Amino acid sequence: MVKLQGFQTLTNVDEALKKWLDAWSIKKSQQIVLPLDDVSDVCGRVLAEDVVALDDLPCFDRSAMDGYAVRYQDSIAASQSCPVKLVVIDTDAEIAIGQAKQVWTGNPLPKGANAVVMLENTVREGNTLTIFSPLAPSINVIRRGEDVKKSQLIAKKGTRITPYIVGLAIALGYSSLKVYQKPIIAILATGNEIVTVGTQIGEHQIFDSNKFVLSAMCQELGTQTINFGIVKDNIEAIAEKIRQALQAADALITTGGTSVGGLDLVPDAVNRVGKPGVIAHGLALRPAMPTGVAVLNDKPVMILSGNPVAAIIGFEVFGRPAICKLLGLNKTEQRLPLKAVLTRKVSGVLGRKTYVRVLVKLEKGELLVEPVSAKGPSAISTMTKSNGYVIIPENCEGLKEGEIVLVQMFSNIVADEEVETCVS
Amino acid sequence: MVKLQGFQTLTNVDEALKKWLDAWSIKKSQQIVLPLDDVSDVCGRVLAEDVVALDDLPCFDRSAMDGYAVRYQDSIAASQSCPVKLVVIDTDAEIAIGQAKQVWTGNPLPKGANAVVMLENTVREGNTLTIFSPLAPSINVIRRGEDVKKSQLIAKKGTRITPYIVGLAIALGYSSLKVYQKPIIAILATGNEIVTVGTQIGEHQIFDSNKFVLSAMCQELGTQTINFGIVKDNIEAIAEKIRQALQAADALITTGGTSVGGLDLVPDAVNRVGKPGVIAHGLALRPAMPTGVAVLNDKPVMILSGNPVAAIIGFEVFGRPAICKLLGLNKTEQRLPLKAVLTRKVSGVLGRKTYVRVLVKLEKGELLVEPVSAKGPSAISTMTKSNGYVIIPENCEGLKEGEIVLVQMFSNIVADEEVETCVS
Repeated sequence: MVKLQGFQTLTNVDEALKKWLDAWSIKKSQQIVLPLDDVSDVCGRVLAEDVVALDDLPCFDRSAMDGYAVRYQDSIAASQSCPVKLVVIDTDAEIAIGQAKQVWTGNPLPKGANAVVMLENTVREGNTLTIFSPLAPSINVIRRGEDVKKSQLIAKKGTRITPYIVGLAIALGYSSLKVYQKPIIAILATGNEIVTVGTQIGEHQIFDSNKFVLSAMCQELGTQTINFGIVKDNIEAIAEKIRQALQAADALITTGGTSVGGLDLVPDAVNRVGKPGVIAHGLALRPAMPTGVAVLNDKPVMILSGNPVAAIIGFEVFGRPAICKLLGLNKTEQRLPLKAVLTRKVSGVLGRKTYVRVLVKLEKGELLVEPVSAKGPSAISTMTKSNGYVIIPENCEGLKEGEIVLVQMFSNIVADEEVETCVS
Repeated sequence: MVKLQGFQTLTNVDEALKKWLDAWSIKKSQQIVLPLDDVSDVCGRVLAEDVVALDDLPCFDRSAMDGYAVRYQDSIAASQSCPVKLVVIDTDAEIAIGQAKQVWTGNPLPKGANAVVMLENTVREGNTLTIFSPLAPSINVIRRGEDVKKSQLIAKKGTRITPYIVGLAIALGYSSLKVYQKPIIAILATGNEIVTVGTQIGEHQIFDSNKFVLSAMCQELGTQTINFGIVKDNIEAIAEKIRQALQAADALITTGGTSVGGLDLVPDAVNRVGKPGVIAHGLALRPAMPTGVAVLNDKPVMILSGNPVAAIIGFEVFGRPAICKLLGLNKTEQRLPLKAVLTRKVSGVLGRKTYVRVLVKLEKGELLVEPVSAKGPSAISTMTKSNGYVIIPENCEGLKEGEIVLVQMFSNIVADEEVETCVS
């Protein structure tokens, strides 16, 4: 049963990703209606409907200032030396020629008025208001529909809901929105040496950390996760867990047992469960070469490395786009791309797409990209010391010091003191 | 009661912020212990303890490859023409001179071995292993402590917990972490014209949207929020709500009634509740000039505008740093700063700090910053069409087309098609 060779060939990452994403479909995702006042549940969800303005916003002309609503025509002759006097009325009647009415910011504009003069530009004695300069039509007025016109598309189906979309929808009179149900991702760890967190560890055993990192990354993207536990390196036991996971979830992520060693049984277990099984295994990707992608029951299966960093990068490359598709998003959400200056050269490997972990700092207004010293795919401390990736393409030998590079940011930039502490 | 004047003077934003943040202290925040396997609760929390490595990681020498553990000294004479032959053993005995033992990636390195030769660089017949080139000491070995050394500081007290910190802590044997309790923020809307979402709206009324936007922004930062409802423009009613809110919460945010018009009663209501009350009101900030900041019962009070965009910008400027302080973070978390080229000039106002909403796009690898047409502080659609702010400082008249500017990003960058749809 022992295979005596490494990966015979490595598959190009972009080709594998495209082929795999095309090899499974999104199930008719359940749509649910969520009330907008439960913002903690609504924000981050994905719209299952176009949000269209039900009316103009605002739906009446409003004053933009504290002051007096007037007819601009009455102000045309006003000047410092020759001010215009108007009569202040206090009823809901239409503003007639020569009249004014006090308004506060946000108040509806009284009928007949078509401009607002700011309080500080007026003098009032009794019911007489004096103004000293001409007003333009509609000055200091927020016109009906100025923010949004009725029937305008506010947010498209497949958009992730932000606090601002919630605010705009409420302002437009929505009290709920139709969203997609959260997809469910099953996560399974494999390996004889893996031990559950919180239990006693034996010699040469290691704690199961990957499952929780991957679970957190899935949840950050807006999915539910199911912890499918740890399974030993036994092909039938792994296959059985995979069968169960695919019953319970919309997608499966495994971690461990994915290289080509004697105990790397996950790809074979996947193929034992069904067709088409493994689509690609062994990728031109550094780290995370032993990553595999598969399809079972028309559901995506991600076969990630047991090495923590390789598992994380494998998830970034394959898990993120797959989950965006499962969520019903219009497009894969990329990490925020940031351009900055590389402080030290980094080497790539020709023919491999390389993910370099970097720490981006803001120093005296300058964004600097410092590569975090590479320690191999098992060193998860490199993830806590970095806040972004730089991707070196397959056809590039490396990046030069001083070069401007595009960084995909996965964590915040912290100020110098704190960063220093973390880099130690 | 009617005040006839606008703000007499405007306070500098940075000075007001500093003075206000110094004017209240953080209560001894409750610390709680959270199990690490509940990642959805742990991630995003703030550490209430330094996380220090309890042991070396890994805590034993491991193989980085599938192959054979050997003594590198035995390989020194090996070459293609004159290979070295070793005897493969299959026991847990120490590797002696001339011996080798098969290992898989991640396996502990057998005693006596100090290098690993990769499977693909060997030929095995029975128990005889042939190698064809010399090995360097420790090659393909992950040394004990290579990732993290025992006692090393992993993450400092006051750091926000990421998935990677969880992973590293679990790998190091932590099963729980000490974090701060989430601060509680009360949010109160004021205004006679404001109506609760989901109810019937009358003429010239508007829905209460700000409270939900602000609540979502607070929750994104990791706080709990309490919805304190809507209060009419009545100074004693507002004061009573403020008293109740400060009993229930660690901080209060109000929205509406904060200019200097006849119904702008919130600052006076705050001062009626206690000392020191309002610290600054009327800021050299655009939009969000009528923002106020106050302190009551040694707790921060943010008096935000009723105009949606002004409320959001007021929250960015004052709410974000205040909440970071309440969370127990070491530093205010800034929005991710991104440098890119401005596609159109934007004007500032001398003496005012101006927040310009912009849409950052990635076009053919180029990051472009497009100002979103300004429509005044009430137009919340400008927030759904933009993904960042550019800040024009007080001493600057504006920014030129083609200039490289720093953008504070608050939403993702989406690809061209989708962005076009949203900008419409």
